[in-house]
Amino acid sequence: MRMKLAGAMVMIAMSASAQTPKIMLVMHGGAGTITRSGMTPEAEAQYRAALEQALRTGQAVLARGGTSVDAVEASIRVLEDSPLFNAGKGAVFTHDGKNEMDASIMNGANKMAGSVAGVTIIKNPISAARAVMEKSKHVMMAGRGAELFATKMGLEIVDPSYFWTERRWKALQQELLKEQQQPRGDLGVGERKKFGTVGAVALDRSGNLAAGTSTGGTTNKQYGRIGDSPIIGAGTYASNDACAVSATGEGEYFIRWTVAYDIAALMKYRGMTVQQAAEEVVNHKLVDAKGEGGVIALDRNGNFAMPFNSEGMYRGWIGGDGVPHVEIYK
Amino acid sequence: MRMKLAGAMVMIAMSASAQTPKIMLVMHGGAGTITRSGMTPEAEAQYRAALEQALRTGQAVLARGGTSVDAVEASIRVLEDSPLFNAGKGAVFTHDGKNEMDASIMNGANKMAGSVAGVTIIKNPISAARAVMEKSKHVMMAGRGAELFATKMGLEIVDPSYFWTERRWKALQQELLKEQQQPRGDLGVGERKKFGTVGAVALDRSGNLAAGTSTGGTTNKQYGRIGDSPIIGAGTYASNDACAVSATGEGEYFIRWTVAYDIAALMKYRGMTVQQAAEEVVNHKLVDAKGEGGVIALDRNGNFAMPFNSEGMYRGWIGGDGVPHVEIYK
Repeated sequence: MRMKLAGAMVMIAMSASAQTPKIMLVMHGGAGTITRSGMTPEAEAQYRAALEQALRTGQAVLARGGTSVDAVEASIRVLEDSPLFNAGKGAVFTHDGKNEMDASIMNGANKMAGSVAGVTIIKNPISAARAVMEKSKHVMMAGRGAELFATKMGLEIVDPSYFWTERRWKALQQELLKEQQQPRGDLGVGERKKFGTVGAVALDRSGNLAAGTSTGGTTNKQYGRIGDSPIIGAGTYASNDACAVSATGEGEYFIRWTVAYDIAALMKYRGMTVQQAAEEVVNHKLVDAKGEGGVIALDRNGNFAMPFNSEGMYRGWIGGDGVPHVEIYK
Repeated sequence: MRMKLAGAMVMIAMSASAQTPKIMLVMHGGAGTITRSGMTPEAEAQYRAALEQALRTGQAVLARGGTSVDAVEASIRVLEDSPLFNAGKGAVFTHDGKNEMDASIMNGANKMAGSVAGVTIIKNPISAARAVMEKSKHVMMAGRGAELFATKMGLEIVDPSYFWTERRWKALQQELLKEQQQPRGDLGVGERKKFGTVGAVALDRSGNLAAGTSTGGTTNKQYGRIGDSPIIGAGTYASNDACAVSATGEGEYFIRWTVAYDIAALMKYRGMTVQQAAEEVVNHKLVDAKGEGGVIALDRNGNFAMPFNSEGMYRGWIGGDGVPHVEIYK
């Protein structure tokens, strides 16, 4: 009996010590009309491979005791360097045929945050957002000013042509053709159903959360439009007292509904779990408002949610066992 | 006895009908180290006169049945046109000797919102923010793109020299001198203790709330820095289910704490009054974080709060009686 009790206690202690350094990384690669019928097996395999690589890269950081901020930056850089996702290398084109990118990052341990908007020559916008967070007193920098800052900070600068990809260029031409045939009256952006933003939320060995988001915005965007990705509280939020969130979708709704912070507020003020809070915002509030998209949200215990109200969302997670899990469809 | 009861009922009915169309406008003209000893009687009289004029202008809109959005825009335009406040005409200078302005507006009836950041040729940025809200599908536009949109929308465009004022130019030179003597290591913005942002929150006859904020940012700002004023949820928020908020202060803290939306969230999710919620965020959360500034917040019943944790805040309110009230110090 004594033996049995001691054994049980050892098991409890082991399970507690196994839980303390719980690490978790959750990522998304954008939401929208992503359906099985619209995807070739080759394309699906490419997306899965890229997401798995990003997950493994971020998990390796966490597994060797790196911070959640390190893991978020490292994993997002992988997707920024891939031409598959609408961020970094694969960024979509603006109306004027440029690639203007936004990114943000937030450290849940101290609520520090950084963001860049409308940058065109920074190879990895997520790293520029991190530099703003850690090497300036500011939270948000835009345009040429942000590029000047990133240059002074020694980040990798590329010629704008680095971001040119045939696939995105053709997508812009299609949009422009559609516009000629059916001019948009309100000077806004026409129908678009793919939101290729990428994002990551991570929990490190010290129990600290972080979140980051990076995007090329929307194809054919005009007038210096800024979406939710670089807006702290809308597209990105992290605080150890609640959760880490990264969003993807119709940015305007995510700004007006303060989506990322609202999930944290529902947890803090209403006592909801991360699943309940994320579900409430994405599948009730946003659905009522007809705002399409999804989020990834992670709490300090490693519980996470990946709700989306669109047809699909590239998403995945990886924990302490190092096995990546990727999902695309509903 | 019968007579008495009838009289009492008439009084109740009158008081109810007098309450239904309750209108209210609350404004701020910035917070910071504003002290009696540091202010001449002439300067104080000028600030009071400008704030009273802005309050009367907005109240006149509400009194004739105009919307809260109309009142917010009209009253903020008055302060933008004054050289006294750091918004529009009186905007401070950036490090490069330019005037780059931000503004945002939100309609509490439908959660529509609009914002512009880093604009240099739009006479009234608050009107540009309104045009983004009402005439585009976007929420936020920055820089040249926002200026192009405002121009197409027929807003008044001015030469950048319109925003040149001797007082603000001298303030920049002082900052630049200070910087030469004591270089700032972190490439951030040096000490600054006046936050001249302007803002308004209004309640109209139909019971709809609106909020707006306009600013020139901070003297000597660099790198395309964007503060909280154009960020929905940080510097500006309005929703009929909670309150309307406009903030002024160290923008970076207001972004990281999602100040404007957090006040709404505390009301919705914790059942706090507008006074309790505004007090909690400004005088507890921000004070703990050492984030200086203040807010104005208004609920659908016309209750409002104007807490600030700095030495002073230009502020005032005006209700159905048309009598403006202005306060400056603690």
